[in-house]
Amino acid sequence: MSEEQSASLITHEIAYAAVRAALIAAASGQAHVFPAVIAHGSAPENVFTVKSGSAPEFAGVRIGSYWPGNVDIPRHDTTVLLIDQRTGRVHAVVESGAVNAYRTAAADADAADALARPDATTLAIFGTGHQALHECLALSTIRPLETILVVARTPGHGEHFVAALADHGLRGQLTPAEQACRAADILVTATTATAPLFDAGWVTPGTHVASMGSDTGGKQELLRTARLFCDLPSQSVVIGEFQHVADLIADGTVALTAIGDVCTGAAAGRRSPEDVSVFDSSGIALQDLAVATALLDVAA
Amino acid sequence: MSEEQSASLITHEIAYAAVRAALIAAASGQAHVFPAVIAHGSAPENVFTVKSGSAPEFAGVRIGSYWPGNVDIPRHDTTVLLIDQRTGRVHAVVESGAVNAYRTAAADADAADALARPDATTLAIFGTGHQALHECLALSTIRPLETILVVARTPGHGEHFVAALADHGLRGQLTPAEQACRAADILVTATTATAPLFDAGWVTPGTHVASMGSDTGGKQELLRTARLFCDLPSQSVVIGEFQHVADLIADGTVALTAIGDVCTGAAAGRRSPEDVSVFDSSGIALQDLAVATALLDVAA
Repeated sequence: MSEEQSASLITHEIAYAAVRAALIAAASGQAHVFPAVIAHGSAPENVFTVKSGSAPEFAGVRIGSYWPGNVDIPRHDTTVLLIDQRTGRVHAVVESGAVNAYRTAAADADAADALARPDATTLAIFGTGHQALHECLALSTIRPLETILVVARTPGHGEHFVAALADHGLRGQLTPAEQACRAADILVTATTATAPLFDAGWVTPGTHVASMGSDTGGKQELLRTARLFCDLPSQSVVIGEFQHVADLIADGTVALTAIGDVCTGAAAGRRSPEDVSVFDSSGIALQDLAVATALLDVAA
Repeated sequence: MSEEQSASLITHEIAYAAVRAALIAAASGQAHVFPAVIAHGSAPENVFTVKSGSAPEFAGVRIGSYWPGNVDIPRHDTTVLLIDQRTGRVHAVVESGAVNAYRTAAADADAADALARPDATTLAIFGTGHQALHECLALSTIRPLETILVVARTPGHGEHFVAALADHGLRGQLTPAEQACRAADILVTATTATAPLFDAGWVTPGTHVASMGSDTGGKQELLRTARLFCDLPSQSVVIGEFQHVADLIADGTVALTAIGDVCTGAAAGRRSPEDVSVFDSSGIALQDLAVATALLDVAA
């Protein structure tokens, strides 16, 4: 399936349902996630990752590339191969460049749907790029967002982003970081910035946080008191957000729950309106395989 | 590129040249071979391997599948993805089911060309299957083989195989294992048998051996005295033929040389007509990427 076709077929609703099924499969023990390989082209700054997995409904490989020197074309690209479980043949190749933003946003939307307070109406978004927009659009399908507090490093980008939200019928408002954090019911970071985005002390009781950014001040303290969730615990403690509390998770001081178990009711999610929940999406191939399979079903 | 197209374009000459370039690149330090992943479908007996690599001329991923329950279609299949080094995009998918036998045979032919005696005319082949036939055809392009001694477990298969060789203008002769070993200038095993195929003591001075089979009697002794070569030393001592002498290689008691360095003259190959040389082909993605790239060039 060509990039043009997959881009034209994908919706946040398709991604939400497919990724949710993948997260449930990942937690169920019926699916397998194999070690991720981080490879590169001749120039070592050009990175491609190879992730593979299998579930009762699908098996295959996801290739993600990041070519930082690309100028007129996206720096990121994604290609998904599906293996026919009956024969072992690669039966479909789905170009998933545009799809990838939906899939990443869908994982956060699935988790937020399971973890955010039912009455959540205020979203704080850090970042003003393409992924940030898709995060807002995906989250708007799971909660009636009244206000989106936009934290922008560059005011011009922020105004552009608020206009883009308006084009989708969403109400954005440029807001300083601390004020946005304190007001948020759901807090999402979608930026490649490496500088600290906010102080974890600004996060108020009852907030659901999707991805904090690795250098966030006070993060360690928050992670010790918040309730922690992720797509795949074994991966999250190695390459994901929770590697910094891996020791505490290993010794049982801190609990880390697979979000798929919350989706099915096998594990508890939020326990009170005061809980702070943190979801880490490290990304697993099952999500990409599930979305690609769904797109083939839609096209059929 | 479809299976039909790649199968119609591949020749032993194309595979020989492409795989030779890949072996040289692997040894040069200009290429990268990333960790191989062994994955599986929902049913754990259905295995797929994911290997990736990059070299100045190409980068990409090879997916090999083994579905043992396949009845009317091959149990093995191979698919190669090429990544455009300028953009990171997957720019070609080459179905390489039939191609794979050529690529595997080409690695053995490249090594035999570099290591077998110039006057080698007698080949001993263990096995009577599809891969065994391709090994004979590939080796016949690098030495004027006068006789191919065919060691068959099942006489009927052996007769069929000798007839297939005749169809290609090659003279095969059913021969008992010991007699074939003692007479061989080049000895190749191409069988999935797990029982010992021959006693290493039957191998005479001057023989070049491509793959011995893991349970061959007297193997340890032969490996200590023979000269050892492989496609990728770091892989061969872990998953390849030489894992059983990995300790001796690590401490320098036994030398293991990358065949690419012999091809370029950077390392010595055979030093005398009496040397026994052993080549282990553990298989690296660079070979598949190089062959796929060559096929695209031919088709262009």
